[in-house]
Amino acid sequence: MSGRRVADLGEFELIDLITAGLGRGEQVVLGAGDDAAVLRLRGDLAVSTDTMVENVHFRRDWSSAHDVGRKSVAACVADAEAMGATGVGVVVSLSVPGELEVEWFSDFAAGVRAECDNAGVSLVGGDLTRAEQIVITVTVLADLAGREPLRRAGAQPGDDVAFCGRLGWAAAGLAVLSRGFRSPRAVVVAQRVPEPPYGQGVVAAQAGAHCLIDVSDGLLADLGHIAAASQVQIDLDSSRFEIAEPQQAVAAALGGGNPLIYQLTGGEDHALVGSFPPGRVPSGWTVIGRVNDGPAQVLVDGAVPDVEAAGWQHFGPAR
Amino acid sequence: MSGRRVADLGEFELIDLITAGLGRGEQVVLGAGDDAAVLRLRGDLAVSTDTMVENVHFRRDWSSAHDVGRKSVAACVADAEAMGATGVGVVVSLSVPGELEVEWFSDFAAGVRAECDNAGVSLVGGDLTRAEQIVITVTVLADLAGREPLRRAGAQPGDDVAFCGRLGWAAAGLAVLSRGFRSPRAVVVAQRVPEPPYGQGVVAAQAGAHCLIDVSDGLLADLGHIAAASQVQIDLDSSRFEIAEPQQAVAAALGGGNPLIYQLTGGEDHALVGSFPPGRVPSGWTVIGRVNDGPAQVLVDGAVPDVEAAGWQHFGPAR
Repeated sequence: MSGRRVADLGEFELIDLITAGLGRGEQVVLGAGDDAAVLRLRGDLAVSTDTMVENVHFRRDWSSAHDVGRKSVAACVADAEAMGATGVGVVVSLSVPGELEVEWFSDFAAGVRAECDNAGVSLVGGDLTRAEQIVITVTVLADLAGREPLRRAGAQPGDDVAFCGRLGWAAAGLAVLSRGFRSPRAVVVAQRVPEPPYGQGVVAAQAGAHCLIDVSDGLLADLGHIAAASQVQIDLDSSRFEIAEPQQAVAAALGGGNPLIYQLTGGEDHALVGSFPPGRVPSGWTVIGRVNDGPAQVLVDGAVPDVEAAGWQHFGPAR
Repeated sequence: MSGRRVADLGEFELIDLITAGLGRGEQVVLGAGDDAAVLRLRGDLAVSTDTMVENVHFRRDWSSAHDVGRKSVAACVADAEAMGATGVGVVVSLSVPGELEVEWFSDFAAGVRAECDNAGVSLVGGDLTRAEQIVITVTVLADLAGREPLRRAGAQPGDDVAFCGRLGWAAAGLAVLSRGFRSPRAVVVAQRVPEPPYGQGVVAAQAGAHCLIDVSDGLLADLGHIAAASQVQIDLDSSRFEIAEPQQAVAAALGGGNPLIYQLTGGEDHALVGSFPPGRVPSGWTVIGRVNDGPAQVLVDGAVPDVEAAGWQHFGPAR
């Protein structure tokens, strides 16, 4: 199909490129193709939506269509994980220019399907429209299966703060891509496709977590949301963070700053972070700090960290 | 706030403009503000998503921001109605240029909230991003409350075909707007904001409807989906259609064609149309034809209607 443009195909041909051979999870009563999809949940519904815009959240010269498809699903399903819910289905809205290559379109669709498989969710519907710029909105439908949602509020003094997943990899990747480099490969790959710790939201809930959030804006910013919602102070222990070799290499190559900055302020890896009663942190999670009584703020080693306003403004794309 | 641009405000200030004073339905366990919203349903979940793009689905010189907000919610909730489900919540993703006036933004948000009130659904979340063009994606979460979904398949020979809502109003409105006119006002208003017959999807389900769809692409096109999915022939009786005075006026003013064309091929009014066992058509619905054994097609007065390929290509915006 080389050379063909989206405008050359009819709407239904394009939809077939997305839905052909779609699997269907056992909780999907009715998949794509009618006015709405129908899902059967075991408990309350958790729902979240996430939009990615070309040249704002991704660049076609940095990421393949497959990467963009995977990332759009991963970023959204991570929000369901952060409630302690299990993703069941996603609906995907895709707006594209008519001159877009059909190959980009079908690679994107393959990426969406691949990440749905990784996350254990079914693609159950969507919408397809023309626009001047690629805009992708994914909405996740997730099942709390009888459990209470894990909110941002709920952290209690004495709790251990722990995370699961990766911190600072995507930010280090963005730092090198922004300067025109393509290595170290591990961080560049991480920027293109996050690896949320699927299933660990439920693990946290079952372990008795008091609160949970996914790291999308940056660890300090997202823990700041927990501190504000829970009205607690969070104190991180910098000695608990392991700086991976590629992050050290990036920091050294780009000016010798402290590579911890990527882990503290970089988003887009979609790690899960929350607080647990002492002794209840599940295996596979890393304790990085404590919840204290005190003003709602996030400290590092007992002091206000010396970074500018934390979060994606540093290392994430503008939006 | 005259003169201010979206780029002048922070993300959280903008979100406050949308969510300030939001009500919350009794099935909303957790509204906007955490990683996901949580809804408590009584039965299976029906979910559908719908995207509107500036200059493709709406024009800022034809429609106010309030109109666009209302239409984006109405068009999406109509898909839930078409399954026989009751809308519970919506999430709204909005992508806008940084130079957009804050006034447009807040009027849009007011329109979204107003139509949510009309439809009896709660706004429970969303996403806000920058883009070159306004792109709106609404996803509706609806409750089947123990009922089976009303699919497109299911029409049976002998059924009465009936609709509820309005046909051809938005198409007549688009016809005059496209030629630079702003009257008759009734059809122009209908083009700007549809009035789906909220609650009638459940009424149809309780009456024993065999199938249901909402008219978004045009009556012939959408009944064509039912005919194909149900493998039946549908025969419409043109004498059953009432042509409203403004539609006659538009047809006369624009060249004297048959005004029935607006009702047969115009979408965007989001009427509901389906088939019922004889004698089971609920009050408030209008019988317009019959389901027959035969090839999967839609006839008018026993013959293939003499219009080009039916649907939005005629009267809807390009997409």
